[in-house]
This record gives sequence, structure tokens and C-alpha cells, in this order.
Amino acid sequence: MVSGKKSYAIGVDLGGTNLRVAAVDESGELLTRTDLPTDVRGRDRIEVVAELCDAVRSVTEQMSSSLKGGGALLGIGIGVAGLVDSETGLLLESPNLPGWNEFDVKGEIEQRLGTQVILENDANVAALGELWLGAGRGGSDLCMYTLGTGVGGGLVLDGKVWRGWNGMAGELGHCNVEPEGPPCNCGSSGCLEQYASATAVTRMAGEALASGAATALAGLTEGELDARAVYQCAMEGDAEARKIFDRVGRALGVAIADMVNTMNLPLHVLGGGVAASWEAFAPSLFDELRRRSFVFAGTTAEDGSGVGARRHTTRVCRALLGGDGGLYGAARLPMRA
Amino acid sequence: MVSGKKSYAIGVDLGGTNLRVAAVDESGELLTRTDLPTDVRGRDRIEVVAELCDAVRSVTEQMSSSLKGGGALLGIGIGVAGLVDSETGLLLESPNLPGWNEFDVKGEIEQRLGTQVILENDANVAALGELWLGAGRGGSDLCMYTLGTGVGGGLVLDGKVWRGWNGMAGELGHCNVEPEGPPCNCGSSGCLEQYASATAVTRMAGEALASGAATALAGLTEGELDARAVYQCAMEGDAEARKIFDRVGRALGVAIADMVNTMNLPLHVLGGGVAASWEAFAPSLFDELRRRSFVFAGTTAEDGSGVGARRHTTRVCRALLGGDGGLYGAARLPMRA
Repeated sequence: MVSGKKSYAIGVDLGGTNLRVAAVDESGELLTRTDLPTDVRGRDRIEVVAELCDAVRSVTEQMSSSLKGGGALLGIGIGVAGLVDSETGLLLESPNLPGWNEFDVKGEIEQRLGTQVILENDANVAALGELWLGAGRGGSDLCMYTLGTGVGGGLVLDGKVWRGWNGMAGELGHCNVEPEGPPCNCGSSGCLEQYASATAVTRMAGEALASGAATALAGLTEGELDARAVYQCAMEGDAEARKIFDRVGRALGVAIADMVNTMNLPLHVLGGGVAASWEAFAPSLFDELRRRSFVFAGTTAEDGSGVGARRHTTRVCRALLGGDGGLYGAARLPMRA
Repeated sequence: MVSGKKSYAIGVDLGGTNLRVAAVDESGELLTRTDLPTDVRGRDRIEVVAELCDAVRSVTEQMSSSLKGGGALLGIGIGVAGLVDSETGLLLESPNLPGWNEFDVKGEIEQRLGTQVILENDANVAALGELWLGAGRGGSDLCMYTLGTGVGGGLVLDGKVWRGWNGMAGELGHCNVEPEGPPCNCGSSGCLEQYASATAVTRMAGEALASGAATALAGLTEGELDARAVYQCAMEGDAEARKIFDRVGRALGVAIADMVNTMNLPLHVLGGGVAASWEAFAPSLFDELRRRSFVFAGTTAEDGSGVGARRHTTRVCRALLGGDGGLYGAARLPMRA
């Protein structure tokens, strides 16, 4: 559509440390965006919502002036870090937004803007973004893991976010990997999140140091010891750092194998900060996956790369949109509704 | 519809040890059925298919004579024990039907009958049957575990069997419960099937005996030592037999927790022979499930029974149709197509 009357949607990414608003047209072109440098976590929730609504209004005005009043706003989609009740729009629980539990985010925003919005979990919108414009382009189904401070997950089935019957689906970070593994905040132990999050990588590095193993990690100050530094050490050949990413890969392999055996989706996408360490954990991930999932083994080549024994190949790959997947996915929500 | 012109479908249940054919109307009423006392496993596959087609023809003739030529046949659905390629209708792999691997079951039957049939994995049709007329009546989504010689699984989402992108979805028996657990035929180790199948219960009983533990199981002859006998001993208070069903329950709890966290379905149904031991394994199943799944814990009462903290309750229960779920589900296939 090359005209002055482009239809567009507004996408909002509301995380613990960022608030971003963008206008995106139906072809996926970014028309304008605003990144608010705000520490959401440390502020009053009503203040944050007010700021979010101001930013949305400002983007809308900007759009209608640049489109000379001719562009149709398709709707507003919001991705938020936390568990969203799909019926009520309540944010049930959010580790990244303390003080927001049970907050009626959707209602509060709708009242201020005077229009309906679609609220969705951030990993779900990231999955939708990757399907639309990223690793899943052209497909209709995928499973996404966001490996960040925690591990989030999102499922898209037949082109739509799968929310489950009350919006709690896709909690892939709490799939069990090792029943008697490290305790998890969710009340279980040995969840994927305890192996494949940035927090877990840092914890495992601390455990390696505490064990007295000879490792380049010992050369880092406490402030330097994070998942990225452990990755650097692994890539420079440090055996202990490599062992840590082996565990990351094995845990992901066990969890993804379960997902492949259960849902038989064509694509599994890994995003979030830890996905940047792909080279360090991918070999053990694929080893484990081939061993644990006969469905995967039956639908892929021996090297996990390409042509399968069957016509089809089950793929596991990195996200392509980086940190913007959620922003695009949020904008996609009203287009699909 | 109370008329002489009832529409009906034919359902076929083709397992390793049984071949059953039924005519079922759209309200779920069984109009006629034939159970062929045949050992499918030990016979030539072409012979079995010929016999199946004869039985289907005989049921069709019976129906058209009793309905005086007025009943419309809606179609023929077949549930078969094994992995079905949904695109080609090939039976890819079937542990229960040795010699049937890569056999074009659908094509062979269609050629003989001169009409299309719908072929589907047996656990998938059992799930569909339970949704239609059993534990899931009135709902649209469920997850079913069939605890038999092996552990099968079936998913129904939005009223339809979820086959995945190439028909291999629902392999719930191969979800990982214990990464370093007993080796599984699928190539992995510690799969649910290694804990919750009749084969696994018998194996664990053998292990208990070999360990020299004091147990009533020692009073059984080798021929008597099966899952049912272990259940009897457990219900009579034998500590070792109880431990075995504790493990069954814990494994099911771990696996179902993953499913609840991932798919957030309202209902999980346990069928197959081992489900008859519900009283022996349910307590540890629910203990584990509450601990492992905050989604479950957040959508159920403390005793796992009824009114939840939220409006909804995630349910786990026994199948209601017993061995007939697959027969009804198979008949349902053409009604949904």
C-alpha cells in the first residue's frame, strides 16, 4: 500500500527496565518509535501508566500529522512482563514489576486513552513478532524461549498466540529439567530457568569459583561476573566456563525435546540476552535434543541442520529481531484480532 | 433426531490385540458394534486389513437394512496404535504392530472400500472420544494420557485433535521425567513411559524383589507379577508396592506439571489399564503437581478438588469411557472433518 492513508497499529513494550512505543504498518514497516529511558521498576505504577499513555498519544498525533489525517489506527497492543489474565486484563503476577500484582493494567490504560487495548504477556508478543517478521516469517506455528534474567516462553499456534484457557500458557521457563535440581522461585526445583537464564549462568559461575576449580572466571571482579563475561571466557577456551554453557545447552535440549515430542511444532526460537551465547551452548543442545526426541531425530538431518529423513525439518534457531521482537509483536496484536 | 434416517459414522479401533468396528450416531449413541476376537499382532497385515474392510462393510449393510436405506453414512474414522503421518496416511512406526512400519494403511483400506477414511493415532482418538462423551464432555480442550503397555498421549485443542505439523504430536509418554532414569526404547532415558506404564510397574516390582526388600510381591509367581497384582498388594498395605505407585504418581506429576505450565489446558485425563490404580498413585501425583506447577496451584483448591483461588480449576481425572474411548473417538473423526 503506497499511499498517504497507511493503516498502522501501535505496539507498546512494557518491561521492568524499559518502556517503548512504536507505530508499525501492516507490512511490518516501522513508522515511528519512542524509547523512554525510564526505570519502570522503581516508579509508581500509575505514573508509569500515565507516561505510557502520553507516549501513545504523542505517537498517534505524530502519525496523524505525517499522514495528514488519513492513516487509520488499527489498534493498540501492549506486551507486558508478567502473567496476564486473558479474561480480565489483570496483571496477575510480575517478577519484573514488583507492586504491579493484580493491577488492572488494561482497564487503567483504556480509561485514560478512551479506547480498547490488547494486553499480552511479553514473551507471547515476542513469539508473535518473530513469526511475523523474524525467524518464523511465512510460517504459522512456533515456540519461543526468551532467555533473559528469567526464562519466558510463548507459543503461536495456527498464527495466533496460544494463551491457554486462562492466559497462563507458555511458562516454558518452568518446565522441569532435573527434578532434584536447584530450587526455583516458582516453588519447584530444577526448572529450565535455573539453567538457561542469565541469572543461572552467573550462579553457576559462582558455584564453579566456590568449588575452587582453576578457571579464568577467577580473574573477574564480582561486578564483572555476569553471563556475558562467562560466555567470553568459554569462547576463549576456559574449561569451567564451557562446562557451564554445556549445562545451559543440555537443559535447553531436555526442555525442547519435551516440547517437540508433545506439540510437534516446526520451529523453536531462542531469544533474550543468553541466546547471544548460542555458539557456546548449541552443540550440547542439539546432542541432547537428538537423543531425547525421536520426533526431532526423525525430522532432521544428522547434523541438525537441513534436509531431513522425512520431507520436513524441525528447526531450532536464534531469534532474528533481537530486543524489538516484542515491540513488533505487540503492534501485530490488533492486526490479528 | 428421532427418525428412521439417522446419520451415523463408523469408528474402527485397530490395536495390537483387538479390532473393533462400531456405528455411532451424531448424539454419541452406539448403533451397532463388532468386536473381532483376532490377534492382529500375529497375522499378515493384508489379511488384517481385508478383515477390517469386511467388518466395515458388514456394519454398513446392517445399518442400511435397519435404517431401511435412509441412514446417511458420514464417514469412516480409524484409530491405529502407532505414529501416523498426517499428510500421507502412512503408519510410520508401530511398536504394537510389528511389520506394519511405513505401511500405507489408509491407502490400502481406501482402495478396498472405494471410499475415503480418516486415519489417526489411537491415543488421539481416545482423547477425542473422552472430549465428546467422557470426562471432557462439554469442553473443547484436553490432554489425555493412556497408561497401557506403553504410555500414549493425545491433545485436543479447540475441539480438534492437535496433530502437530506432521502428525507426531502428543507423544506424552516420552516427556522427560528424570534425565538419567531408566533407558527408554525411544533412545532417551527417564521418559514418563519408564515409570507410568504397566511394563514399568512390573519392572519396578522386579527391581524391588531383586533388592531383597520384604514385600508381599515375593508371594507371587512370575506369571502373576503384573501391574494389577502390584496394585492389589499396594491396596493391601504392602510398603514396597506402595513405593512403586508413589513413583508412578510422582512421574505423572512432573510430566503433567510441564504440560500445565506449557499449554494451560483445563483438563488432563488418565486412561489405560494403569489408570485403574488411580487410588494408589493419585496422592503423590497431586503432591508433585502442586509443587511443580504454579499455574496448577493458582487454578485449583488446596486439595486439588474443586473451587480455585481463581474462577477456574485445572482438573486431572480418570477417563470415563474405559477401553471404548478410542472407538467413539474414531467415529467422531468424520463428524468433525
